[in-house]
Formats: sequence, structure tokens, C-alpha cells
Amino acid sequence: MTSQGFFDACRTVVPADAAAASAATELQARLTKPRGSLGSVEDIGIRLSAMAGTCPPPVPAPVTVAVFAGDHGVVAEGVTPWPQEVTAQMVANFCAGGAAINVLARHVGAEVVVVDVGVATPIPTDSNALVRRNVAPGTRNLAVVPAMTTEEAVAALDVGLDVALQSIAAGARMVVTGDMGIGNTTSAAALIAARSGRSAAEVTGRGTGIDDAMLERKKVVIAQALSRLAPDAEPLVVLAELGGLEIAALCGFVVGAATRRVPVIVDGVIAAAASLMATAFVPEVIDYLIVGHRSSEPGSSVVLEELGLAPVLDLGMRLGEGSGAALAVPTVQAAAKILREMATFDSAGVSDKAGPSN
Amino acid sequence: MTSQGFFDACRTVVPADAAAASAATELQARLTKPRGSLGSVEDIGIRLSAMAGTCPPPVPAPVTVAVFAGDHGVVAEGVTPWPQEVTAQMVANFCAGGAAINVLARHVGAEVVVVDVGVATPIPTDSNALVRRNVAPGTRNLAVVPAMTTEEAVAALDVGLDVALQSIAAGARMVVTGDMGIGNTTSAAALIAARSGRSAAEVTGRGTGIDDAMLERKKVVIAQALSRLAPDAEPLVVLAELGGLEIAALCGFVVGAATRRVPVIVDGVIAAAASLMATAFVPEVIDYLIVGHRSSEPGSSVVLEELGLAPVLDLGMRLGEGSGAALAVPTVQAAAKILREMATFDSAGVSDKAGPSN
Repeated sequence: MTSQGFFDACRTVVPADAAAASAATELQARLTKPRGSLGSVEDIGIRLSAMAGTCPPPVPAPVTVAVFAGDHGVVAEGVTPWPQEVTAQMVANFCAGGAAINVLARHVGAEVVVVDVGVATPIPTDSNALVRRNVAPGTRNLAVVPAMTTEEAVAALDVGLDVALQSIAAGARMVVTGDMGIGNTTSAAALIAARSGRSAAEVTGRGTGIDDAMLERKKVVIAQALSRLAPDAEPLVVLAELGGLEIAALCGFVVGAATRRVPVIVDGVIAAAASLMATAFVPEVIDYLIVGHRSSEPGSSVVLEELGLAPVLDLGMRLGEGSGAALAVPTVQAAAKILREMATFDSAGVSDKAGPSN
Repeated sequence: MTSQGFFDACRTVVPADAAAASAATELQARLTKPRGSLGSVEDIGIRLSAMAGTCPPPVPAPVTVAVFAGDHGVVAEGVTPWPQEVTAQMVANFCAGGAAINVLARHVGAEVVVVDVGVATPIPTDSNALVRRNVAPGTRNLAVVPAMTTEEAVAALDVGLDVALQSIAAGARMVVTGDMGIGNTTSAAALIAARSGRSAAEVTGRGTGIDDAMLERKKVVIAQALSRLAPDAEPLVVLAELGGLEIAALCGFVVGAATRRVPVIVDGVIAAAASLMATAFVPEVIDYLIVGHRSSEPGSSVVLEELGLAPVLDLGMRLGEGSGAALAVPTVQAAAKILREMATFDSAGVSDKAGPSN
């Protein structure tokens, strides 16, 4: 599909179009509604215009959800109650269409692509739907050694880039981040702490549901990993040290979408960590990010603050898989349709409000 | 369609089914996701089961949005910068398909029914789509006299009831509240203050965008109207005193849906006021209410607190028309599909988490 590597791709990301954003802002003011009355939906429409470089923006469809799966050596530290085999079992569940992300993607008319970028155990499926791009059978234990070599990290970045470019070449005009990996909230929290300068305590949450003792253990593990990092460590080193393979792939995926000026809906804390890393490699990537929801994991809110982005949904979700981002798809598409389909005060013969603030 | 009046209908509302809710709660725990990880989406699914009396619940579709339009005599007090004719002009815009609610309803696959229950000026449309059930040409000025007679209030309640029952007879399995009426945030705020015991200052907002002077005037007007009411005034008296015709119709609409155990998605502050009144007439109505979004109007948050309900969306919207509620439709439907379509741990061969909290 592409011989372009991740770092070449990074150099081709351009900022979103300020002129298109201005045109959309001006159009919002002429539509038959009080100015600003659609709240964030207006902002999303303006940003979609800027991403596409045209006003009104195209409706961002079709949509592809890419679910990247990888395992984490840090599970050896007892940071999760789930057996590692669940990663592979859930990949099979994704391929069979029975997981939450399958239900939600079907509901919003999105396609699901499942990518094995680093599953450690045999995947109990013979589905053709599975994209087999396994870089390594899980990461190493980030508590004690770098989770990945930089070569592995680059290979995983390239997998994500390729999946984005292939999805877009196949017609996708919006993409959604998905993830699966037992232990991956530990890796994500560590990355978010490293890039934001927050402490392990501030970014660490209960993931899929752990008890107090496990939560304390998780914070210690993350603090231990962070202590290895130089304060000025380059993004690639941070990513390799803390993992994971699916997070690196998501980082490449996000950058890939940005190179094609395609909006990316970012899911929960795993995708938030990957997006934060992506903006470390290429700051302009932020122009193409739409945060689908605020996860109940604390790291999600830290990234929202770091990036200065507001989430579309805030439903207390913490599943991952792309589930919260998929649920945001209809609202994002609606924002484009508002700009494309609403009547203006002039065209509808509706009086604008009186007074000097007209 | 029906010879049943509003008060007869009130007596037929039954509470939602606790056994179906329990069954749905138990099913949520067997689906291939950590328990509780879909946040409010799980709660919505459980409530849909209770409303329908069956687990899993049916997918709540087709959906009808009913937009009730009425004018408000209180505009004489200078509480809005918009000319009163805008109500009629927007009704024509709804019939022509150019308003935000038309765009959003089309997007989520919902039908829009537009009902003139109290528009004061000629409606510039000859559309057959308009349901003409005008009870009176706007309310009287609630600052100085009762907005409606109790007979007018009952007639408007009956209009809303009829529209709900007709929509459901025509196939709707979920309904969405919509409203249009220049000046109606004043009436809604007054009703919310009256039923919640909050002060005018606490419930009054800027509506479609008013300046500080107008906001102060609005608070004075509301306080003046409230001072006429006995503390123990009956719901019908409160409704008649404070208006409006479209709010009374929405109250009847909500009760009508509840009589048929059909979920109602409640839009912004106007619908919140109507829903609060509906629960005053029939407390069990609350079991069938889903609050579509948190409006930026303060009265919306007061009602959420009074009813103890969480909104689906929180996007800073304040348009009305049913716009925020319509945007919540996909999430509500998704909640039903999660229960209907997801695999269980057993069926998918996925290991449940280890430990005593299994």
C-alpha cells in the first residue's frame, strides 16, 4: 500500500485550514438558530470545515474503526485481575462480531478492522477479517525493562500508519481508534505521566476494575518505570520504554489520518495516550483529533486538559475497544449536516433578532 | 383517535417493571465487557427494559419528534430580543425542513410532527404537515395575569396527549419532545421555580441570548408571577398561571407516552419544565423519561436534580426544538442493542476476570 514510513509521514501533516474555519463560523451565524445555541456541535462543524479545507464540510462518512490488539509484559506485576489470554479471546470475539464495539459500529454504520499488532497468545479464530501484523508477542515488563526496542516501536507505528492509509484508500472519510490489550491502562497511564509531567498517582485509574491493593501496586509500577526516563527523552524513546505495541500502532494510525486530513475520533485513555504521543511527534496532528468521550480513567481527563480539547460524550464509559468514540460518530456527522442542510435567516424568511448585537 | 382526556390518561400510567430491570442488570454482567464499563449506557439499557417490561428491551424505533409551538404574552415585558413573528416563521421553517430539528431528526431517522397549539400570528405556510390544534393565539402576560385559563390549559394538555397517542398508534416506539415559542424560557423558568421552590434568580437564564439588563428584567417578571401563587397551588393552577400552551401540550405528550410505556426523550429547559409538571400530575411518569441533554439554561440543571436523572448529552446546547434530545437518539438506541446483540462470556469463550469479585 505504502512504502512511506512513519517519520516520512509525519513531515507531510499540514495544519487545518483557518480560512475554512472562518467561513464556517460566519455561516453558523446566518443559520436559523440563535448564535451559539448548538454549543459544541457548532464548534465541531467549524473544526470539520478546517480539517477538510472547505465550507460547508463534507459529511464525514464512511467511517472505519480500527481495533489494534497487543499484550503487555507488565501483567507479570499483578496490575490486572484478567488473564492475558483474554486479549486473544476478545480479538476472536471482535472477528465474530459479538463485542461491544461490533454492536456500536454496526449501529452507527461503521466498519470494524481488527489488527493483531502484538497479541502474545494464540488467537482462537480463523477469520479472514483479522489483519495479522504481529510485531512481537506482547511487550516486555515495563516495570523493569523497556517495553519495546525502538525498532519494535517503529514497526508498530508503521502498522498503524498503514492501516489508516489503507482504510482511507478504501473510502473511509473518518476513522475511529479502537484498542484491546490486557494491562494496557498501565502502559497508557505511564505514557501520559511521562508526557504531561503528572505523577503516577494523578494519572492512574482502576482500568477494567481493580481493587485498592492492585491500584497501589499499579501506581508503584508506573512510578518505577518513569524513574528510568530522562526528563528530556525523545518521544520515540518514551514510547519504546513504556509501550505498548497497540498504543504505538494507534499513534501511527492517528498520524496517518492527519496526513490525509481525515478526522480521527479518539476513544478512551489508551487512545488518549496514543494521541498525546502523536502530538509529541507532530504538533499539527491535534487539528484532526476529535475526542469521542471522557473516559472515567483519570488519564483521559489529563490528556483532554493537555490538548485543550473537549470530549463529545461524557457517559462514564471505560471499556475501550473504540466504544465511546463510536458512539460519538452520529454527533460528529450531525455537526457537518447542520452546516450543509440548515436554512439561513434569509432563505427561510425568518427575522433575525432585534438590537445592536445583530 | 381518542376520547380519553388528560386526567383519565393520568390514571392509566403504571410504574416501570422492576423484574425486567433486574433481568437486564443481570444480563449486563454476563456480556463480554468489564462490569459497569459502559457507564450510563448500561443504565439506559436497564431502564429501557423496565419501561418495556422485557429483557432485552426492544430497540426503541421508529422515533417521532413532536414540535409544539405557542406564543407568550409575556414578550410584552421585554424579556426577549426576538420579534414574536419568529414563532410563526420558524413553524413554517419546520414544515419546509430547514430548521436544526429537521436536519437532526433526518440524521437519526426520526419523523418530525409540527403542532400549532398556540401561535399568535399567521403562519406563513400552506403545508399539510402542520397539525393545526390552536387552543388560543398565545398566552396572556404572566407578569400580570394568569397565562391561561384552566380550560385552555386542559385543552393544551389534551392536544399533547392526542399527538402522543396518535404517533404511537402510527408506529412510534420512542418519542422526542420539541418546542418553539418566543418568550418560552420565561414561562419554563417560572414553572420550574414554582415546582422546585427555587428562586427566580436560580432558575432564570439568558434563553436565546439576552443581555444583562434583559436578564434582570426577566428575573423580576418571574418573581412577580410567582408571588401570585399559593404555596400549595395544584399543578393545573400552576400550569395555567405560568403557561405556556406548548408547555402544557408537552406535559400531555409526556404523559401520553408513559400511558403506552413508550420512552420519551426530554429536550432542554422547556421540556424539562413540562416533564416536571407531568411528574406533578403523575409521579410514575418519571420511569419513562430519558433526559436527552443538559441545556446551558440553569433551569435544566435544576430539573435534572429534582428528578434525579442524568442527561445523555452535555454539549452546551440551548436551542430547543428538540435538537438536543434528537441527538441523544442514537445513544439510547445503542443501549438497547448492547443488551440484544452482545455476546456473553460463555457464548464467546472469553474468560471472566479472576478473583472473588467474579
